[in-house]
Amino acid sequence: MAGSRVDRPYIPGMSAYAGDERAHGRPVSPRRAGVLRPLAIDQVALAPGGFWGALQRRNAETTIPHAERWIERVGTVENFLPPAERSVPQRRGVLFTDSDAYKVLEAMAWEGGRARDPGLERRTARLTAIVERAVEDDGYVNTYWGAYEARDRYSDLQMGHELYCHGHLIQAAVAAARTGGPQSLVRAGVAAADHVCREFGPGGPREAICGHPEIELALVELYRVRGDERCLQTAAAMIERRGRGLLGEGPFGRAYYQDDLPVREAAVMRGHAVRALYLLAGAADVAAESGDTELLAAVERQWHATIARRTYITGGMGSRHEDESFGEDFELPPDRAYAETCAGVAAVMLAWRLLLATGDSRYADHIERTLHNVVLACPSRAGSAFFYTNPLQRRAPGTPPPPDSESRHAATGMRAPWFSVPCCPPNVARLLATLGGYAATVDDDGVQLHLYAAGRVSTDAATLALRTRYPWDGTVDVEIEATQAPPWTLSLRVPSWAGGATVTVGGRSRPAAPGVVRVRRAWRRGDVVRLELPVRPRWSVPAARIDAVRGCVAAERGPLVYCAESLATRDDAALDALVVDPVEAADERPVDGLEDAVGIAVRAREHRAGVACGWPYGGGDRGSAPPGAERRLTLVPYYLWANRGPSTMRVWLPAGRGR
Amino acid sequence: MAGSRVDRPYIPGMSAYAGDERAHGRPVSPRRAGVLRPLAIDQVALAPGGFWGALQRRNAETTIPHAERWIERVGTVENFLPPAERSVPQRRGVLFTDSDAYKVLEAMAWEGGRARDPGLERRTARLTAIVERAVEDDGYVNTYWGAYEARDRYSDLQMGHELYCHGHLIQAAVAAARTGGPQSLVRAGVAAADHVCREFGPGGPREAICGHPEIELALVELYRVRGDERCLQTAAAMIERRGRGLLGEGPFGRAYYQDDLPVREAAVMRGHAVRALYLLAGAADVAAESGDTELLAAVERQWHATIARRTYITGGMGSRHEDESFGEDFELPPDRAYAETCAGVAAVMLAWRLLLATGDSRYADHIERTLHNVVLACPSRAGSAFFYTNPLQRRAPGTPPPPDSESRHAATGMRAPWFSVPCCPPNVARLLATLGGYAATVDDDGVQLHLYAAGRVSTDAATLALRTRYPWDGTVDVEIEATQAPPWTLSLRVPSWAGGATVTVGGRSRPAAPGVVRVRRAWRRGDVVRLELPVRPRWSVPAARIDAVRGCVAAERGPLVYCAESLATRDDAALDALVVDPVEAADERPVDGLEDAVGIAVRAREHRAGVACGWPYGGGDRGSAPPGAERRLTLVPYYLWANRGPSTMRVWLPAGRGR
Repeated sequence: MAGSRVDRPYIPGMSAYAGDERAHGRPVSPRRAGVLRPLAIDQVALAPGGFWGALQRRNAETTIPHAERWIERVGTVENFLPPAERSVPQRRGVLFTDSDAYKVLEAMAWEGGRARDPGLERRTARLTAIVERAVEDDGYVNTYWGAYEARDRYSDLQMGHELYCHGHLIQAAVAAARTGGPQSLVRAGVAAADHVCREFGPGGPREAICGHPEIELALVELYRVRGDERCLQTAAAMIERRGRGLLGEGPFGRAYYQDDLPVREAAVMRGHAVRALYLLAGAADVAAESGDTELLAAVERQWHATIARRTYITGGMGSRHEDESFGEDFELPPDRAYAETCAGVAAVMLAWRLLLATGDSRYADHIERTLHNVVLACPSRAGSAFFYTNPLQRRAPGTPPPPDSESRHAATGMRAPWFSVPCCPPNVARLLATLGGYAATVDDDGVQLHLYAAGRVSTDAATLALRTRYPWDGTVDVEIEATQAPPWTLSLRVPSWAGGATVTVGGRSRPAAPGVVRVRRAWRRGDVVRLELPVRPRWSVPAARIDAVRGCVAAERGPLVYCAESLATRDDAALDALVVDPVEAADERPVDGLEDAVGIAVRAREHRAGVACGWPYGGGDRGSAPPGAERRLTLVPYYLWANRGPSTMRVWLPAGRGR
Repeated sequence: MAGSRVDRPYIPGMSAYAGDERAHGRPVSPRRAGVLRPLAIDQVALAPGGFWGALQRRNAETTIPHAERWIERVGTVENFLPPAERSVPQRRGVLFTDSDAYKVLEAMAWEGGRARDPGLERRTARLTAIVERAVEDDGYVNTYWGAYEARDRYSDLQMGHELYCHGHLIQAAVAAARTGGPQSLVRAGVAAADHVCREFGPGGPREAICGHPEIELALVELYRVRGDERCLQTAAAMIERRGRGLLGEGPFGRAYYQDDLPVREAAVMRGHAVRALYLLAGAADVAAESGDTELLAAVERQWHATIARRTYITGGMGSRHEDESFGEDFELPPDRAYAETCAGVAAVMLAWRLLLATGDSRYADHIERTLHNVVLACPSRAGSAFFYTNPLQRRAPGTPPPPDSESRHAATGMRAPWFSVPCCPPNVARLLATLGGYAATVDDDGVQLHLYAAGRVSTDAATLALRTRYPWDGTVDVEIEATQAPPWTLSLRVPSWAGGATVTVGGRSRPAAPGVVRVRRAWRRGDVVRLELPVRPRWSVPAARIDAVRGCVAAERGPLVYCAESLATRDDAALDALVVDPVEAADERPVDGLEDAVGIAVRAREHRAGVACGWPYGGGDRGSAPPGAERRLTLVPYYLWANRGPSTMRVWLPAGRGR
């Protein structure tokens, strides 16, 4: 129950917040309620042995400390010290490394709010103390621009990332404010926000925007903490300023940073994917707080168009390496998919805001898809190496990245311990630390379950225990452990792929069509609701307009996308010469080296054509070779690929009769 | 006949060259003869009204003067003046703009050698005089590095492009030397080469290479002019140094500039496409002059592997925008094809060297394919706007580039007048000015025709008149206008696609299989050989391993690749919703707005699926929609697309029964 943490020490002197405990522990906490209301991360306790609980524990025990070590090692932390106090006087890393430290701090703060850990609290306080050193008198803080390096503030709004970095500091401050984290971190975030509002707010001296959106959603969330209207107004102004050419043309054109069209007018997401998603998340926040239904509709419209035409089956977004951007409609190459991990995190952020605002379960469907097939694909099984890009095909076996230095972002086909632009690992870390907060919501009528993870949901109305092996198994049992007398509604999301699902209450089963199934009654302690989702292998076919995977099929099972993976150490590397027949039923099978996962057994045939040795374009008789040898493949969950050594991989498998 | 120009004033003081008139007018002129020997550009006169002759005239009358104006306008020329004498003191443009001026100069020199033009000679002399101003005392010249800007020479061999620029200067000097061009240009090139050999030659102070190959082939060609062994040795040393990590890792990894593997060991071209092709062209030159069969074999091996796995049906090379590189084997996306025009020019340069060395007609086949479908696609029909990249699919109608400023290289789907990196237009200009030199060769046994262009070929042995409307028509008549008494062999290339070709001599026809057909006899004046190539529409199917165009077909006719083009001004923009049935015969038809071209009429059907409006991946019933409406399309030669206004385009058309 929310009340269980009312005794948590809130932020002294922040009366506006202290009076609004509804925001406690919530990553996103609208003041003006939408259709659904969020729960705090400590209201949804994921069972440590469950699918998500185990990943959250790995995040706490391995990934967050790993990130802390790397930001020390590569100078990200030391950059916050005055040059004279650093071990090397030069500032290190790309110009926006501050944001890496802030995201790590944010993850640490949320993790500390989820599960008390005195060691973590000390580390959080220490890192905060270092960051604080760089805060200038007026709240401005940046280790690349400003006082330390004597570079003019805001002299490169296009690519300088100053407001982006301030935004991440503010998000860390919000996390601290809502979890009883370091008050000095909250103060730094508030000071930065006040500075930004003075400089960039309505009527301020700078009628400008940042090349990388992020400050908008951060200001709205701090507004939600403090109730300072100026933050909301500044965010709203920045949303409205965008798309009017204020940033100039830039190396990649205006669409790169969404400055080509006003947010209200754009039809689809475009340009740099993370920028586009952060921007719309901020726009959704502004719309929610201002009750601006037109703006909300514009965001929803762009989301739906992007889902229909610019999204990979994994949920991945961003088709191009060149500028990390969405491509055009239906430009979805599997091999060169960029599908940045951060875009996956940002897609969850955006969809969550739209889910709260509308209650539409399609947003939760997309959160689930993206969590399982993009966000989860990023960390290695050990939690200490990461994918930055998430392609759907890899033709050559991966090459191990350097263990002791930063990797380039472009995938080598294996996960790397850190990157020269290490935005993704901390982004995943802060999301996983708050994951419980995305699993369930409440409204005046009851409780809604969006993600199925073993654990316990505690609301004012009830305590629910969830027991499930999902996603490996489709049975989800929800037991009412405590409840109040009046009838209320338990809503269960039925994913779009789950045709044939059933819900069973009190021994009686009924069909549960994709969307939401609602069970309303006067609950009693010990009542159990069972949701049965048809988690079994299925073949998916791409729309005809997606040129890059024409003639192929992909296997899915529950929320998981599967892939064929061929380990370079074995004699089965020729994935690209295989054809599957999707008419054949696919069976389940264990996977060597991934024993906790369920594999999918399929039969395939080799192309006779094999590797072309001359000019590869010819007459129409190329399809007439006799069927090739039969091969048996075990498809593995996409998110687990590249955990067993160098390998080739493909999600989309040519379909046909094996000729 | 070659003798017709013996009276041309050669280069005083260059005795080694003056004694070797065989090199006159030849872009590539091996001292150590390979299987075939080149002719001079004035030995192959293209008929001004013929297909290639008209393009060559357009090049002379429009493209070269256009390039001259733009390099003036954007500061490329003024950069060669001392800062104090410039209209703006700052140097303008990217760091390697000098090479643009050199390539324009080279084009001007070759054009002057092809067809005397006093106006052109004056302009060439004037531009040469300006360039000369920047030459430093020791022969070094660069407007970004060195004295003008006080930047340390060779302080960034990885990306500094200094040897690259010197290479282009030397190539311009070679053109001047072989066409009676400005002697001061020859001197500047010789001085630069001497400088480079002193600094980088064997035993010199700098055992290094340039991040962008080019100097190697330039030094060999100047060796061919002067006979100075030091140039050859320096080029050979640079070839051997490559692939040993001398350049360091760089932003894109060592493969980007082919420093990952020694030339002799590499299996396939990789990394930046133009760099890879220039490097192998230089390696082929070194191999030719040193009789190094192992090196030649290494170059041939890489060429064949690249043709089989990393080349578009257009002949285009380079699959990635991100680093302008070859992708992996079979990574050949049509929409994101980079297929830089310069890579097409470089592919012609490389294949020509291999053709001379080996006589293998497959190299000539590739030259023809690349000329018609990459090089020719670059200039607009007017010759004053250019494509930098040459994708095989364009989903959204193009947007007109700015008419008065430089465009980015990434295609907007329409040709641009100039680019911020304007390497392509002058590269095409220098190639078109020398095109005759690529049409025919001689050996001890006779004359070989490689390209079929209306015009006249004059060799020591004979004068041949070619009459043909090729590529629109497949009939090529070769009339012997003058000859010598002893029998000799006329060899005619039969392209690989030309199954069913015939050759007719003296009224008797015989089959001419793809490869080379040879006709040996004691020729008499007035003899006519007729080659009949089956120039008619054909469908081509991609190898099964090329994922990006699975299930598609492309139309070709003779050496031309065709595409479907949909003008944005008409109501037929939905190219991506069409399916063709390649079993149906395709007819020929005129094209609106492209009256000189032959179009191909095909029937297509619309997908019922149309534009997806929800999640675009679903169950296996997506293919079961009834056939859609029939549509008639007129395919146009690919090289002519985007000449009639904004349009969408695709070379690869989904094949099927229209469902």
